[in-house]
Amino acid sequence: MQNIYDNKEFFDDYINMRNKEINANNLIEKPIFQSLLPSFKDKKILDLGCGFGDLCKFAENDGARKVVGIDISKNMIDKAKKINYGEKISYLNLPMEKINEINEKFDFVLSSLAFHYVENFDKLIKNIKNLLVPNGYLIFSQEHPVATAFIPPKNKKIDSKIDIENKRYYLLSDYNNNGKRSIHWNIDGVVKYHRNFTAIINTLSENNFIIEKLVESYADEEAIKLEPKYKYQNDRPYFLFIKAKLA
Amino acid sequence: MQNIYDNKEFFDDYINMRNKEINANNLIEKPIFQSLLPSFKDKKILDLGCGFGDLCKFAENDGARKVVGIDISKNMIDKAKKINYGEKISYLNLPMEKINEINEKFDFVLSSLAFHYVENFDKLIKNIKNLLVPNGYLIFSQEHPVATAFIPPKNKKIDSKIDIENKRYYLLSDYNNNGKRSIHWNIDGVVKYHRNFTAIINTLSENNFIIEKLVESYADEEAIKLEPKYKYQNDRPYFLFIKAKLA
Repeated sequence: MQNIYDNKEFFDDYINMRNKEINANNLIEKPIFQSLLPSFKDKKILDLGCGFGDLCKFAENDGARKVVGIDISKNMIDKAKKINYGEKISYLNLPMEKINEINEKFDFVLSSLAFHYVENFDKLIKNIKNLLVPNGYLIFSQEHPVATAFIPPKNKKIDSKIDIENKRYYLLSDYNNNGKRSIHWNIDGVVKYHRNFTAIINTLSENNFIIEKLVESYADEEAIKLEPKYKYQNDRPYFLFIKAKLA
Repeated sequence: MQNIYDNKEFFDDYINMRNKEINANNLIEKPIFQSLLPSFKDKKILDLGCGFGDLCKFAENDGARKVVGIDISKNMIDKAKKINYGEKISYLNLPMEKINEINEKFDFVLSSLAFHYVENFDKLIKNIKNLLVPNGYLIFSQEHPVATAFIPPKNKKIDSKIDIENKRYYLLSDYNNNGKRSIHWNIDGVVKYHRNFTAIINTLSENNFIIEKLVESYADEEAIKLEPKYKYQNDRPYFLFIKAKLA
């Protein structure tokens, strides 16, 4: 897994974006993610790719007994310890690929917008299964398959989208071509992994997860009023959310 | 539900298309659908939107104890009785909206490429649930959400897809706008219903179905060799298949 958040240029740009109140995380991702969460009272929570700890702090405030947040980026963990310190929260600088090193069980494994950085999804889900109590929940968001499908062409004249008469067209070539995507996001060469629904759903199912709820993101009227460009998020969803229970 | 298959012009065009051996049903849909089917030996099968009975005959040949095929189109049922007659098969001229009139239970409910004609998906799934034995299976295919999303514009200059430098772009506006789509397919005014993954998966989950397998269609090399235009089916899937078990 690429440790892009410890690249100073990227990290500065990212924090700058997140510091603005009007961003897709605050207006679109967070409200949907929180709508999927039950009460955390007396529960044990593991947050994968916790970033600067917003979700861990939310879980503690909601009454969690213990919260563990992990992130590959030391920058993020340092920031989390400062701005989202909590008596019941431990932050670990650990990549998601190494969660098999954690020796305890949790009631909930959460992950907000981080799974698309992981190459081996099957291994990740198997590791999560081992960290959950029976009937425990995995609740995660990631970039939506129709948003990650596009492979940037070497011929820079070709764009991933085209606007014609106020309608937006998306290049969906390679939707069924799961794998690495190297894209420009703040800096060049940010590595993500595209997986279609077939890969996501079947990996969960094969590992005994029952999908209880799935949500594809949309921008509501308020979000579009605050940031008109979010109307394009309704063309095709940008985030995917899944709540799955270990059978 | 529109009874388009009893429109003579549509039916003739449709049968003409299906009579060709090289079509998307034979090359793409059928092989994937059949790969999802377990043995039908001694099982009771209900096929919703059975058309001219290919799948019913397949189930009988595979050892099913009893097969019931229903279809809204009398044309189709008449043809099924002729070309796919079977001692263990009953064909009924019944729309899918009325399966609550059937008073028996089945081990498998199947449906190939018909659910996108049904307006009320929740009612359909509730009715199917009542027709299944505990741990019974629903196995269906339908048009894929990215293929049904498009709303044909009144301004005919706008197309649903654009080819640029050998890449194809799709208009995905209204992906999150579930509902009626009136399209041209053989004739004008064919009515289908678009549902995104959110709607499909949550309706199944809310009705106690566990999704065991999901497949998005693709064209393999052989299919593309027989019909080069199928390469575009790999840009974005055209069919969606779901195998779900009643908990």
